Parts: sequence; structure tokens; C-alpha cells
Amino acid sequence: MKVAKFGGSSVANSEQIKKVGSIIADDTERKFVVVSAPGKRFDADTKITDLLITLSDLATQNKHYTGIVEEVIARFSEIIHELDIPETILTDINQSIQTVLNGESSEQMKIDGLKSIGEDSCAKIVSEYLKTIGLNAHYLNPKDAGIIVSDEPGNAQVLPESYDALYEMRKRDGIIVIPGFFGFTMDERLMTFSRGGSDITGSIVAAGVQADLYENFTDVDSVYVVDPRIIPNPEKVTKLTYKEMRELSYSGFGVFHDEALMPAFQAEIPVCIKNTNNPGSPGTMIVSEKDPQSRCVVGIASDTGFSNLYVSKYLMNRELGFGRRLLQILEDESISFEHAPSGIDNMSVIIRDNQLTAEKELNVINRIKQELNPETISIDYGFAMVMVVGEGMMSAVGIAEKSTAAFAEANISIEMINQGSSEVSVMFGIRKDKLDLAIKSLYNKFFN
Amino acid sequence: MKVAKFGGSSVANSEQIKKVGSIIADDTERKFVVVSAPGKRFDADTKITDLLITLSDLATQNKHYTGIVEEVIARFSEIIHELDIPETILTDINQSIQTVLNGESSEQMKIDGLKSIGEDSCAKIVSEYLKTIGLNAHYLNPKDAGIIVSDEPGNAQVLPESYDALYEMRKRDGIIVIPGFFGFTMDERLMTFSRGGSDITGSIVAAGVQADLYENFTDVDSVYVVDPRIIPNPEKVTKLTYKEMRELSYSGFGVFHDEALMPAFQAEIPVCIKNTNNPGSPGTMIVSEKDPQSRCVVGIASDTGFSNLYVSKYLMNRELGFGRRLLQILEDESISFEHAPSGIDNMSVIIRDNQLTAEKELNVINRIKQELNPETISIDYGFAMVMVVGEGMMSAVGIAEKSTAAFAEANISIEMINQGSSEVSVMFGIRKDKLDLAIKSLYNKFFN
Repeated sequence: MKVAKFGGSSVANSEQIKKVGSIIADDTERKFVVVSAPGKRFDADTKITDLLITLSDLATQNKHYTGIVEEVIARFSEIIHELDIPETILTDINQSIQTVLNGESSEQMKIDGLKSIGEDSCAKIVSEYLKTIGLNAHYLNPKDAGIIVSDEPGNAQVLPESYDALYEMRKRDGIIVIPGFFGFTMDERLMTFSRGGSDITGSIVAAGVQADLYENFTDVDSVYVVDPRIIPNPEKVTKLTYKEMRELSYSGFGVFHDEALMPAFQAEIPVCIKNTNNPGSPGTMIVSEKDPQSRCVVGIASDTGFSNLYVSKYLMNRELGFGRRLLQILEDESISFEHAPSGIDNMSVIIRDNQLTAEKELNVINRIKQELNPETISIDYGFAMVMVVGEGMMSAVGIAEKSTAAFAEANISIEMINQGSSEVSVMFGIRKDKLDLAIKSLYNKFFN
Repeated sequence: MKVAKFGGSSVANSEQIKKVGSIIADDTERKFVVVSAPGKRFDADTKITDLLITLSDLATQNKHYTGIVEEVIARFSEIIHELDIPETILTDINQSIQTVLNGESSEQMKIDGLKSIGEDSCAKIVSEYLKTIGLNAHYLNPKDAGIIVSDEPGNAQVLPESYDALYEMRKRDGIIVIPGFFGFTMDERLMTFSRGGSDITGSIVAAGVQADLYENFTDVDSVYVVDPRIIPNPEKVTKLTYKEMRELSYSGFGVFHDEALMPAFQAEIPVCIKNTNNPGSPGTMIVSEKDPQSRCVVGIASDTGFSNLYVSKYLMNRELGFGRRLLQILEDESISFEHAPSGIDNMSVIIRDNQLTAEKELNVINRIKQELNPETISIDYGFAMVMVVGEGMMSAVGIAEKSTAAFAEANISIEMINQGSSEVSVMFGIRKDKLDLAIKSLYNKFFN
């Protein structure tokens, strides 16, 4: 039994929803369907969720919002007409919007209520459409499905109580269509997950019903071994482990909302990333255990936008607590760090640029100077990180050599290297203007 | 003007002291001489400092100590007779010992007082001997030299006030012979430095008198590029920077008491390591700035006795403060760490085995489990660390490749890699049984 989740592009319009219909009809194992809100139909289009966020902004600021409501209704109306399903759904959607807008609930609950309407309406539409093609489909509200969450508007966390309730869904008849992106608190207040939260719903449902497979339908055939914006038409990854996926998600691999994988990961449910527009393609499987037959290095991830805080002090390694105090100063400024490779008398802390502001930098530098009394301290910008990813890669002799040879052949100096004993990845820090060259050289070394 | 420091083996007996005399006579720039206590004359011999430590142990425990006093006196007596210098020095030494033994001072001050007698007596002897060979030499007590230290018996730290007083020594006539290893507090109580502290005195004096060169006479011709116990007769290092020396001292390079270099390092005084038994050999120069003409990699240091604390947790890198809290737990158990290479969802902390006890390990593991809730946690023993050292090495393309190729060619898998942006070294963690193989392969790659 499978859980199939369809992203925004898979339900963007009637034509896409018809593809969803035939995918579900095609495999009787697809019993649970989770849907996002309709996404963009073309590049310049606006996602329904973004329209609803604008609506909630206007409403909470007491501004005129009728135009946006009409735009949302028009989008759903077009889909409903083209799919030839009952008009009553449109009335239903309109009523949902009005109920939230005119309700007595708090501002925050209004925002979550409006945001959830995209997914909720889409689930109703998909369920009705599946009936028209002869399937025994039922819309199921997350409240009735048993998705119980914490009281954190816009950032709800699933509560463990959910899973028993979700398991009960197995007994239900036919195909169950559930809107993604939200759940309900114990006292039945609606709360949305963080952005991209339909993936979270899919993963929770898959874990709850103990699915054999969680299918995540997107608009790409698979995960690629390298960023296709740097290498056109790169090799596809057919299978990888959760840990590998997570390392790849870190940078340059936007396919997956990686936090979403957590429930599926913990329940050891295999995940398959597939393409709604090309369902015959095998996609990419994400599994718990590395297949010993498979290739050692599965991919090369990369990202720019990193800075390096560098501190040196003679005899630093004799000072108990030096590294800890340095990290404490960063934490006090709410700066999280990525890596902290060190020499004997120095420490580099690699930080994403979005963690830094001019004020935070000043505070950090002043405190380090005062409290740690270093010889040199600097913040250096413009680094790119390259991760060579593959579980167990380091027990294979020569992977480090192959990687470093790729940099040398491209005449790139490696500024930082970091590899723990995890054996899932090795990280190289280089100047960002060398990134494309580095990726090309590594791709040729490992895949071409 | 030069400061020449002579280690224990350089003043172990009259024959060695004669070598010291001709080294000093040979170069009129050698104005300041710092001496250790006489060391071992042969392998099974006992250093005078160790005799004095035994003496202080017996004295403080009210045990019979006359035999040890006689042994110390006999050692000095032999030297004095063989050098043919006045017997009065021996009386003087005996009186110094009796004064401390029978004095009213605290136990801790007695210990420091007795320990200092080896260096102090040796300075008196060397100074008298230099006179007999026609040099205008004078013994100078550290109190009169102006070496002012903190009130920490056995671990005194030099106070900044010392340097002005030391600078005044430049005005003194002739050759000044100063005992190493101790100084005096502001209220004139004698305090010793930590073990190996004659190097500290030498370095302080060199910084204070603003010497052109600090010569450190030992019993080896130079620093070697690799541990000569692993590679017989390896290449010599003719010149290296302070930072490189420090990275090499980290492991396998016991030539230097690295803390001792601090004052010379801060005053940018060049240091030369030379051999009393072969003073014509150029030795190894330690300087502030890398010579751009010199070889990129200066040496390969290595050491065994490391453990790896490994912690993994899905989405670890989203938890602000995870790394800091992990290091805090170690610090609470007074465990200092060497490196902390990390992946996305894991962190390895490399710790010297001497930092761990069964009890500490248990405490650390329990607290990490309770407070950080990781997926996996383990402590793995039996690692060796290999450091490829060379300032600026990483801006040279291909050094990482050359290093990793050496491991691959020796069929050794690299368990950890750590390189900050310091560009002074790159660290490789391997299984300790592979260490000799790794060093041989790296030596062949970089030096042979």
C-alpha cells in the first residue's frame, strides 16, 4: 500500500489533475493521496498559496481584499469547470474563505486558516475528480484523519499521538484524499506546518499508515548527481539513502523539503521521487540502507553564500573550553554555524551569510577580542562549499584522492576540508568564483 | 647580539661544558647564556633535576635524604674538579641546599627552591669555567636579571614587567650567565616554571634583551621533516616558521618545549636549534615569516593515542547550539578536544586518550544521550593523527591531492580530514596500525 503526494505543479490546473487521476487509477496500491495547493501554471503565474497569503495580509491590515478573493475563486472555478465536477465545491470553497475572514478567531489563526484553503480545496477537487473517473475516492479532513499538532501557528509540529489515529485510516474504504500542509491541535484549532509542509503531511501519513512506499510526485524525473544548472543533463540518481539525500539537500538540491523526510525516515518507509509529467520514469528511490552493489559516490552538492570566521591564537589547544566559548558567542547572537575545522592554534567557523548582519558581526568580533584574546580574527566572505556525498565512501580507499585530484586538475586551491567519521560526505571549501569549474571537474572524475 | 641556551645534555659533564665554552668563545655575539641543570651522562643516568625532585619528596615527607644530597654534591664535585675551577663553588652549592632544607618556608616553596638548585649551580659553574678560558663572564641570578613571575609554584608565568628590567641587562659588561627554569615573584619568592622551563627562560631573555637570535643548543643537528623513529635518517628542516614549528611540536617532534617559544614568537626573535656536539652544522632556523622560495610542505608530524566521539542526529544542523552544548559537556568533565570535524547531521570530536577515563566516558555518554537526544553515539579508540605541515600550503594547488594520493597508494582509508583556512596544516585521521605505512608513503611523496 502506497501514499502518493502530489506537489503544486502536479495540481496546478485541470490538465495536471487529470494526470494525477490516471496515475492513481494506474496502481491500486495508491490508497492514500496527499495534495498541495495548485501551483504556478506558467513561470509568471502566482501560486494559490501566495494569493492566500496576500489575502491574509490585506485582511489582517483591514485593507480591501475582495479582488484577491475573486482571483482565488476564479482559479478554482476554472479547474472545476474544466474537470466537469459539481459546482457545489466552488460554493463550498467560497464559504470556507468567508467563514475564516468573518470569524472571531485570532489574527494568527486567521492567517493559518486562510493559508490552508489552497490544499483543502484542492483535496476536495481531486477527490471529486477521481469519482468522475470511476474511483471510490473520499476527501478526508486532517482532523478526521488524526493529524494532531503542536500549538505553533505557521510552524506546527506533529504530535506522536497522531500515528495511532492515522493507522486506523487503513480500515477505511477506497482511496483517501487528504489535504497537505496543516493539522489540528488537541482542542481542534487549525495550524499549518512550515512552508513546503505538504511534504510533511505526506511523510506523516506514510509513517502513520505504515506504507510500503511513499511516492512524492514533482515535476522532475529524478534527483541528479549534480546541479543541472551547472552540468546540463547530468546523470540521474536511481537510489540513495536517507543520509545521502540529507547531505545532498544541504546545498543545490532543492527537490525535497528535507525536514519533511523525518517521519518517513524514522519509520523506515522508502520514498520514491517521481515525475507527474513522466510517471513511467523510475524516479529516485530513497532508502534506509545503502545497497552494497551501488556506486560509492552518489552525488556532488554545492552551494554559495558562506563566510569564514577565522580566529588564531598561539597555544589555543591548551586552553580548555576555547572552542566552546567561541561557539557560545555565536549562539548568543543566534548565529548557527555549518562546520568548524581547526588547526592546532586556529579555528575556522563556516557560517551561512544569511546568519550574519553587520551588527552581529561587530558584536561577535568585539566579544571574541575581549573574551578570548586572540592573535588574529577575521571574517572572510565569498566561499562556496562542495560536498562529495556517498555513504561509506571513506572506507573506500582513494575517494579523497579522486576528489582532491579533481580540484588540482582544475587548478583550484582548496581553502578548507572537513570530513568527520560519518563517512557520508566530505566537504571542500573553495572561493565561490571557482565553483562551476570545480563541479565540472568533479563530475568528470566521478560520473563521466 | 645573541642569547644562547644550553640544554641538560649540553652541560651533563665537564666534557660537555668545555664544548659550551668553545661555542661561546667562538662568537663574540653570544653575550647572554642560559643553562639547564646537568642532564644524563649516559642512558641509565639520572638527571640532576630528577635527583633534586627525589630530594624534595624525601624532605617534605620527613624521610632520610642525606644519601641524595651526597649524590648531588658528588655530581657537581666531579664537574668542578674536572674543569679545574675553585672549590668554593661546591661549598656554595652545598650551602644553598642546606639553606632550603633547613629554612622556614612553605613546603611548596621548598620544592621549588630545591628544584632550582640544578640550574643555579650549573650557571655558577659555567660562568667560572668561562673565566678560566679567558672570557669576561658573570653569573647573574634571575632576581637580579629581572625575571619577575606570577605566584604559581611549579608553573610560574612571566610577568610583563620583566621585559624592561631584562632590557637593562644589555648595558652590563661581558658575558652574562643566567640559570634557566626559575624567576622571582614581586615579593622576591623563588618560583619555577613548568618542566622544560629553561627553554622558557631562554625565550624570555631573548625577548627581553631584543636579541638578534635565540640559539637553542640541544643534542640533535636539526629538526627532521618526519619522525626519525619511523624513517631512519630523514631530511633535515633548515628553516621553518613559528607556526609550522608549533604544528610539528603537536606530535612526534619532541625537540622543543613549544610553550617556551611564546615570548620569542611575540617579540619576533628568530630561533636557531643547534647541536652542542656538532656546532658547525647550520641547525634549524625558526622565523616569523615564510620564505617564499622555500618548500611548501616542511614536515609530517604524527601521533597515536586518539579516540573519536561520534554523535549523529537527523537535522542536527538545524539545532542552534548543538555543537556548543556537546563541547560544554566535555568541558564540564575537563576533557579538552583536538578537532571537531562534522557532517550535516553528525559531529566527530577527536580527543587524546589521556583526557579520558572510564568514568568520564560514561558521564559524557549519559549526558549527551539525555541532553542532546542523538540517534547514535559512540566512542571509538585507536586512531592516529597525521599532520602535513607547511604554511601557505593550501594556496598551492595540488598539495591535498598529493597527500591523499600517498594514503591511497599505501591502501589506507582516511577516516577523518580536517583543514581550516589557516593553511598551516591538514590533518588526516587513520587507524593507528596504518601509521608507519602512511608516514612512509607521505615521506616518499613529499621528500624523497
